[in-house]
Amino acid sequence: MQSQSKTVSVPGGITAPRGFRAAAVHAGIRRTRDDLALVVSDRPAGAAGVFTTNRVQAAPVVLDREIVAGGTARAVIFNSGNANACTGERGMRDARAMRRTTAECLGIPENEVLVCSTGVIGVPLPMDKILPGIRAAAGALSPDGGDAAARAIMTTDRTDKQAAAAFDAEDGGGTVTLGAMAKGAGMIDPRMATMLAMVTTDAAIAPGLLREVLRGAVDRSFNRITVDGDRSTNDTVLLLANGASGVSLDEAHDAWPVFEKTLADLCLELARMMVRDGEGATRLVTVRVRGAASDADADLAARAVARSSLVKTSWFGRDPNWGRVIAALGYSGAAMDEARTRIFYGGVPAFDRGRPAGEADRNALRMVMGEPEFEVVIDLGLGRGASTIYTCDLTVDYVTLNADYTT
Amino acid sequence: MQSQSKTVSVPGGITAPRGFRAAAVHAGIRRTRDDLALVVSDRPAGAAGVFTTNRVQAAPVVLDREIVAGGTARAVIFNSGNANACTGERGMRDARAMRRTTAECLGIPENEVLVCSTGVIGVPLPMDKILPGIRAAAGALSPDGGDAAARAIMTTDRTDKQAAAAFDAEDGGGTVTLGAMAKGAGMIDPRMATMLAMVTTDAAIAPGLLREVLRGAVDRSFNRITVDGDRSTNDTVLLLANGASGVSLDEAHDAWPVFEKTLADLCLELARMMVRDGEGATRLVTVRVRGAASDADADLAARAVARSSLVKTSWFGRDPNWGRVIAALGYSGAAMDEARTRIFYGGVPAFDRGRPAGEADRNALRMVMGEPEFEVVIDLGLGRGASTIYTCDLTVDYVTLNADYTT
Repeated sequence: MQSQSKTVSVPGGITAPRGFRAAAVHAGIRRTRDDLALVVSDRPAGAAGVFTTNRVQAAPVVLDREIVAGGTARAVIFNSGNANACTGERGMRDARAMRRTTAECLGIPENEVLVCSTGVIGVPLPMDKILPGIRAAAGALSPDGGDAAARAIMTTDRTDKQAAAAFDAEDGGGTVTLGAMAKGAGMIDPRMATMLAMVTTDAAIAPGLLREVLRGAVDRSFNRITVDGDRSTNDTVLLLANGASGVSLDEAHDAWPVFEKTLADLCLELARMMVRDGEGATRLVTVRVRGAASDADADLAARAVARSSLVKTSWFGRDPNWGRVIAALGYSGAAMDEARTRIFYGGVPAFDRGRPAGEADRNALRMVMGEPEFEVVIDLGLGRGASTIYTCDLTVDYVTLNADYTT
Repeated sequence: MQSQSKTVSVPGGITAPRGFRAAAVHAGIRRTRDDLALVVSDRPAGAAGVFTTNRVQAAPVVLDREIVAGGTARAVIFNSGNANACTGERGMRDARAMRRTTAECLGIPENEVLVCSTGVIGVPLPMDKILPGIRAAAGALSPDGGDAAARAIMTTDRTDKQAAAAFDAEDGGGTVTLGAMAKGAGMIDPRMATMLAMVTTDAAIAPGLLREVLRGAVDRSFNRITVDGDRSTNDTVLLLANGASGVSLDEAHDAWPVFEKTLADLCLELARMMVRDGEGATRLVTVRVRGAASDADADLAARAVARSSLVKTSWFGRDPNWGRVIAALGYSGAAMDEARTRIFYGGVPAFDRGRPAGEADRNALRMVMGEPEFEVVIDLGLGRGASTIYTCDLTVDYVTLNADYTT
């Protein structure tokens, strides 16, 4: 069996694995920035997807569910600036037209094309701009296009989000590479949050197994983040595996655990980037709950703290206001007893079983909170249940940004 | 049977009913403003209370639950500036000392005194200031003290919250008056949200019935508001009925429906004041859901919209971003189908069964949102379920206020 230490970070994103090309263009949905991205595998690839659980599903999400059910895809066309959600029958027609045009330009079947849209809800797509944009993108595909694609899918993101990793699958005699890109940054909540993410790999993996391994990775990454508790209509995570490395992986392969872990780590890295770049965010906060009566209780507790507006504003203000954390734990629904609960910021104790920690040092607590990333550790002192949620602070910039998004 | 039109608003608050006196003093918990209030009935009164459902309960809440279980009380001592929550055994001792001192000063039994605290969590009460403050307040009681008491319980409230109403209970041959005061303004969420409210009446009502009528009124008022989705450790609504009007009411009395409705209306009036004065709020928004598959579904839908950070920031920005409303409905858990859903701001249609309302007029929508109070009406088009939730916008001031509350 491979040791996990064999996995190394490599430069680039979704075009880091062999056999993937990408391009981005400015189609004119947005004023100046690139707003259309195309990612293409040079051969049919195994495809898996995880989608929003919102009852309102954008047209491209409806379409993509069908495609990934087939297990194979070769291309993904992305647009930013418009979510194509709540657009009725016209929205479905537009999403199909994006798919058809992409397939025609690439000379591949329509059922190998996935469509992702992100941006404002309820406005019809400007198809007169998008279709020529797709043709331009198809003519500009390049193995170095990953960077441009990652920037073109950004909406309120301040930074692009990419990562790639590789490991040596010795028995298969080759190097397997995984690449990924994602965008946040608002309407982000656990359980498929307006995020899009795409992961590519040049390993060959059967569709059933691909679905399973993606689901596991998403549960440990994108489903453990929250920015504002709002769950979007467009969330999509796609995984394409094209086999260009010459390595075929399955559960019996020595390197399978390495692939599984590399995929999960890559997704977590992107998920954390998303939180760090949450709308208006100045702090990435990891909420770790342990000692809960069950894992489910730990999850309830961690999510309540991570979603509390009062807790999140206190982080923004560098105010070690653990009283708000206790209050959130109390209404979380998890079994808890303040007389058994301990709270730490970083390693510094703040609350110790019913009262402020004896050694609670306000300056030390504020030092921890001054960092761009810190942990809030909660020990409920009841059992062995544990959960971790990644979140950010609630800031003045979040409000000003969202008070004026469609206008 | 009495018609409801017989109920009239009267000036004042908790000392409007006969037989109640109040006083407020500056004990020194806060820098300059009054921070201690005492309300006393001149005779034993029927008492009922509704308390926070948070698992973490402040010491005074624990104490008050015992007292109201007895069904009788005569006095309530309030302090602001400190919640006496998460203060362990010392907190319980301090709450008992407040009760004992109040009882001694008034010459009444300890088990007729209720204690309410609101303010910061986790800091021991400054008892050296509070006990002399109680003595001073006991010496200053007056039938005109309601105003001062309502101001002394304020924390981040910008305005005091009081109301009173009276009706003629003809058969009983007398006028029954109800008076009330409350405070908000953060950590407010449905299902007993840091709010305190007290209602007084000079009718005589048996404790069991008093509990029932208060529970009904709270369900229709305080449990239907949300500011920030955080539920506090101190929420308390108290009702004291001292019989000083000479009128005894029970369910068989002709005027009972009038009392019931007057109480519920008074509570709703205070609840709406609380939302209007929510931390940083600039808009009171009434979210009405109708046409849901059930009342429970309507409630899920209304609460999801009323709690969505993205929806609330759009209200702040006067941005008729109904896409965020649709997204919140989609993740609310309520049965819904965008193709049957209609959304109105004020009377102006914004979304009509799957697409933007044909006549949607952005300027008209923005006009509605410019008002300090407006309604968002959602018709799910599925059934007869309905629910109403009162909430406010999420503003820059909310964040700045809460980023720096304990410091």
